[in-house]
Formats: sequence, structure tokens, C-alpha cells
Amino acid sequence: MIAVIMAGGSGTRFWPRSRRSTPKQFLPLLGEKSLLAETLDRIAPAVPIEKVLVVTSAQFMDEVPRHLPGIPPENVLGEPVGRNTAPCIALAAAVAERRWGSDEVMAVLPADHHVENRDAFIELLVKAAEACTGTAMLVTVGIRPDRPETGFGYLELGERWKEIGGETLYRLKRFVEKPDLERAKEYVASERFLWNSGMFVWTVGAIRAELERHLPECAEAMDAFRKAGTSELGGLLSHYFPRLPSISIDYAVMEKSNHVAALPASFAWSDVGSWDALRGLVVPDNEGNYVVGDFLGIDSTGCVIHSPRKLVAAVGVRDLIIVETEDALLVCRRDRAQDVRAVVDRLEEEERIDHL
Amino acid sequence: MIAVIMAGGSGTRFWPRSRRSTPKQFLPLLGEKSLLAETLDRIAPAVPIEKVLVVTSAQFMDEVPRHLPGIPPENVLGEPVGRNTAPCIALAAAVAERRWGSDEVMAVLPADHHVENRDAFIELLVKAAEACTGTAMLVTVGIRPDRPETGFGYLELGERWKEIGGETLYRLKRFVEKPDLERAKEYVASERFLWNSGMFVWTVGAIRAELERHLPECAEAMDAFRKAGTSELGGLLSHYFPRLPSISIDYAVMEKSNHVAALPASFAWSDVGSWDALRGLVVPDNEGNYVVGDFLGIDSTGCVIHSPRKLVAAVGVRDLIIVETEDALLVCRRDRAQDVRAVVDRLEEEERIDHL
Repeated sequence: MIAVIMAGGSGTRFWPRSRRSTPKQFLPLLGEKSLLAETLDRIAPAVPIEKVLVVTSAQFMDEVPRHLPGIPPENVLGEPVGRNTAPCIALAAAVAERRWGSDEVMAVLPADHHVENRDAFIELLVKAAEACTGTAMLVTVGIRPDRPETGFGYLELGERWKEIGGETLYRLKRFVEKPDLERAKEYVASERFLWNSGMFVWTVGAIRAELERHLPECAEAMDAFRKAGTSELGGLLSHYFPRLPSISIDYAVMEKSNHVAALPASFAWSDVGSWDALRGLVVPDNEGNYVVGDFLGIDSTGCVIHSPRKLVAAVGVRDLIIVETEDALLVCRRDRAQDVRAVVDRLEEEERIDHL
Repeated sequence: MIAVIMAGGSGTRFWPRSRRSTPKQFLPLLGEKSLLAETLDRIAPAVPIEKVLVVTSAQFMDEVPRHLPGIPPENVLGEPVGRNTAPCIALAAAVAERRWGSDEVMAVLPADHHVENRDAFIELLVKAAEACTGTAMLVTVGIRPDRPETGFGYLELGERWKEIGGETLYRLKRFVEKPDLERAKEYVASERFLWNSGMFVWTVGAIRAELERHLPECAEAMDAFRKAGTSELGGLLSHYFPRLPSISIDYAVMEKSNHVAALPASFAWSDVGSWDALRGLVVPDNEGNYVVGDFLGIDSTGCVIHSPRKLVAAVGVRDLIIVETEDALLVCRRDRAQDVRAVVDRLEEEERIDHL
């Protein structure tokens, strides 16, 4: 199996920890290792490092090997400009086809997610690979929801497609945009809806065919990338990438294709979408605070603390996000976690380069 | 005029800025200078530095000259143990009597208060000195309240005593403990009540006589201190201080004496009692935040920010105190400012010496 790790994010929602020079995937949010390094560790039992492609922003091509020692240099692909996931996947598929052929199975994984149970994850990935081998199907991994989350898109399951090792894959009925709370509750209750995880498994040939069909603007570039040797690739990327549409694989292909299946997964997963997401990843202390670092709370509860270097003391506060870094500090109401972006916007307006 | 600056406080309510090794009076809470240095600057127009006595904890005797360059070493008096303000004043009065005689006027000032208008302050101090010269009266400076503060004691004015340069001094009817809000409102409305500022003016002989009368336990020690040369004083302090009662000058003398007058002052004054007090000392920004340092607020109001070194960003929060220091960070609800003490207590319990 080939793995494509999409590591192109810029991650403004983890400011002040994330910066232009250090987006989320390069951060050790939870332990010693960055999310990118954890992503590689997670797939290592199923994919040799020689078959791992990492697509990132061109500016981060030197950063990637620091997190993934042993990654072959030619496996790190740098986008000169970000164009969302469809062009990213088109690029990776083209390179994979040249190197390993169109029958290979390719798993596409975001670099900045978190999965709790690695054994369950690998088991599922292998089953997905087995399911799509020799077929034209695009398999998307859906997470069984354990709460009515309004921050994710959902997958509605259709009829059964096939069974593999005790797991059932379903044809996909439709993709659903982020719902309101009421609808999300219905989805969870119905058991016919999964969270759209953004993880995919398919053969190189299958995704190539669907990209050519549904996103013909990418076909010429894919063709050129496929024919290029490693030394030529940089020039071709500079030429083609700015001309490609900025569009997600969901919009460009998955929602249009008739060959989409979903594999329900039950492992604990998080897209680590904002500081608030740390609540799903850290065991709360006795007062219900989610702490990475050193925390002393007096009558304080429901707080998310990220301060690996420094003692944080809180008195009488609840549901706050508190993040401490070398040169900046964030205090944010938990239900405003998405608005950390507004801080970054303001810093950009004020051209405060040092803090971006 | 002699000035006695009482600089013995340990200041746990300004943690994490204040520490055992750096109590509040040594902190530059507002500008470049420490509160102690500002206290000296404030009295400088009326008192030459040779006539300034600083009473502090013995452990801080080396710290004082760093804040008050030019202070004669023999003017810094170190208490081997803290015994509240009455023994502190008894010591200073004894030393002052030996050096300058009992007819000198002596102003007693806490080292850790803030006064906005220095000209008004000096004018008032000079009038108080003039008023008590040649009398046995103890003059206490009372601040005209501009709000029903429940955190201060009050002075209730009695009949007029005398007029000096347009200012009226009153005999004191009584000292009032910190009132509840309703009572505080009555006090403000009546215009017969002042805040007890803890600043006093009297002749050396007057305070000596009243201490001998109302706190005879101090008499022997005062006698010894008065007779001692500078070189002997240290030994005498070690001998006597631990034996003296720990009691405030208010309880020990002011509330009992029949010779107490009050001089109402209208300058903006603060006892800088907690982080919340910064609201009285800092001009709020457009969003109503009180900022010392670098602050970027999104939908945030009513916060007190003290972060001279580091950017603080806040999203969606109100009425918080946020304090950043080299090795610790405090986030505290504003109405819990007094409970910062609880953090220090917990650190002591846990023997976290580094943060104390």
C-alpha cells in the first residue's frame, strides 16, 4: 500500500502555538512528536516509508524530514501554492502512478489528525485496501459519531456494497454539509450517518479515472506530473499549480462520483480542529480541566490548558482555553475557539510579523 | 520633615509578579519604577533623602538601596520579624528621636500605595505637618471616597479642629472597619466619612507619648532603640522584635487615642491592594480593558492585563485578570482577585519553592 500524507495546512486556529512558519501538522500538540510524525508512526505497520508520499507547501519541504527521518527526499512533494485537496491528491496520484503503477492501493491521510487506537486504525486501513483492490471504487473512511458534532460534515450510508473481514462497506448515499445541532442529533440517532474523516483509500487508477472525469482541469497537469522525472517535477509544479482550481476532493470528485463507498470506523478520532478539540484527546483532571503542562486551578473547571513550559494558575474561571508560548499568550472562551482565527487576522492587518 | 516609609509587606496578592523575594513594594507595577521608588519620588519635594527612614524586613535591607539610590545606609531599618505597623512605627520614631529630636514632624507612609497627583499630595502633607507642629495631635490622612468601596476601613469625622491654608482638619469621631456595600453607600453619601489611607503625620514626641500610653509593651524596646547607636541597633532589634506584639498602629494607638485628627484629601489614591486595583491606575482602552503591556482583544472587555514582556490575545472574555511573568501565568476572575492568595497557599502546601 502507498500512503499519501497531506501536510499542506496553514493552521491559524492553533495560534499562538501555530505560526506561518510552524503550522499545526509540525506541532507536538500532545506529546513529544508532531502530528505529522504521529501520522507516519500510525501507518508504519502497513506502509514502508519508501511508499509514503508527503505533499506539503514548497516552503516546508525542508521541515518534513525533520519530522520524518528516513523519508526519501523524492517522496516529499512541495506545492508552490496551496490549491486545497483535489490538486494535492491529483499530484500524489500522478507521482504514485509513475513510480508504482495504477493498480497500487493508495491511502490518503491528513497530516494533522489524531487517532487514539492505532491497532484498530491499521486493521481498518488494511480492510479498506482489500476492499478496493481491483475495483474502481473510492473508499472513504467514516467515523461512527459518538456525539451530535456540528463542526464536521457527515456521510449518509446507502446500501451495502461488500463485507471484508467482518466489516461492512456501504455505497455512499450522499455527503452532508456541517449540520445544525438538531439535525446532527437526528444523524447520530439514525445510525446511518458517519463523520466525514477526510481519509480515503482507492487504487491509483481509480482516483485517476475519477479525477479525469470530474475535474478535467487537472488532467493535463496530472499527465505532465506522471511523465516527469524527479528533477523535472519542481519546474512543472511551478508551471501548473497556480493554474489549477482551488477545490477540495469532496466537492471536486467524491460528491459527483458514482463509485464511492464508505467504511465505518469505530476508533476514537479527532480532526484536531481547534484548541477545543484537546478535550477529546486529553484525559481531564479531577476538576474537569484538560491540561497539557503545569496547571494549578482554584475553583476552575472545563478549561483547556496548553502550557508545556510554564505554570498556569487559574482562579474562579470556567470553560476557557489558555495557551502559553515563548512570545504570546492566548485566553479564549472555549465556545469561541474558532475565532482564534480573528486574532491572526488582526495580527495580519497590523502587520505584526513577529507573531504570525 | 522626616518621612518614614513602611516597606515591610510580603504581598501575596500580586502573585505571580510578587514573590517571597520580590514583594509588591519592589515591583514596577505601573511604569519603570517600583512602588517604593515612586513613594520616595513623591515625598522628595518636602523631605531630603537624609531624613527618610525606610523600615523593611531584614532580608530586604540590600534590596532597598537598589530602589532608592542615595539613601544613607543607616536610614534603612531591618525588622528581623514582621510585627505589623505599630512596632514598625515605634522603631522609626525611636530612631528619629535620637537623630533629630522629639519636636520634628514625621510623616508615615506605606511603600506600596499609589497617588496620582503629586503636587496635591505634597501640598496636603505640608499642611498636615504645619497643623501638628507643636501639638500632641496624631493626624491621619483620609481620602474623600469617590465610590462605596468595601475593601477599605473608614474614618468618621467629628468636630472641626483647625484650619490650615484653606484645608480643614477634624477631630476623629471613630475608626470604622470595612463596611458592607449598603453601609459604604451611606458613608459616601453622608460626606462625613473618609477612607483610612494608612498615612499619618505627627511629631516624634506625640507618637512616642501615645505609644507609651496605649502600647506599654513597646516602651522598653523604644527606649533601647532610642539610646542605641547605629552599630548596636541590629543586635537590639534581634533581641526585642520577636518579643513585641504583632499589632497595627490603628488598633494599638489610633483607635484608643483622644488626640487624633483627620485631614481630608481629594487626590486620587490607591492602596494597590490587588490586581483588580489596576483599574483605578490605568486608563482603560477603547474596549474597557486595563492594560499594562501588549494586548490584542477580540470581543473582550473589562479585563486587567499585566504582561510587560509578551503579547496577550483574548477572545470573548470579560472581567478577567491576566498576568504573565517569566515562569508563571495567572488567569483570575476579577471579582476573585483577593483569592490569588489561595494560589500562593497551594504553592506553599505543595512546597513549590520555585514559584513562591
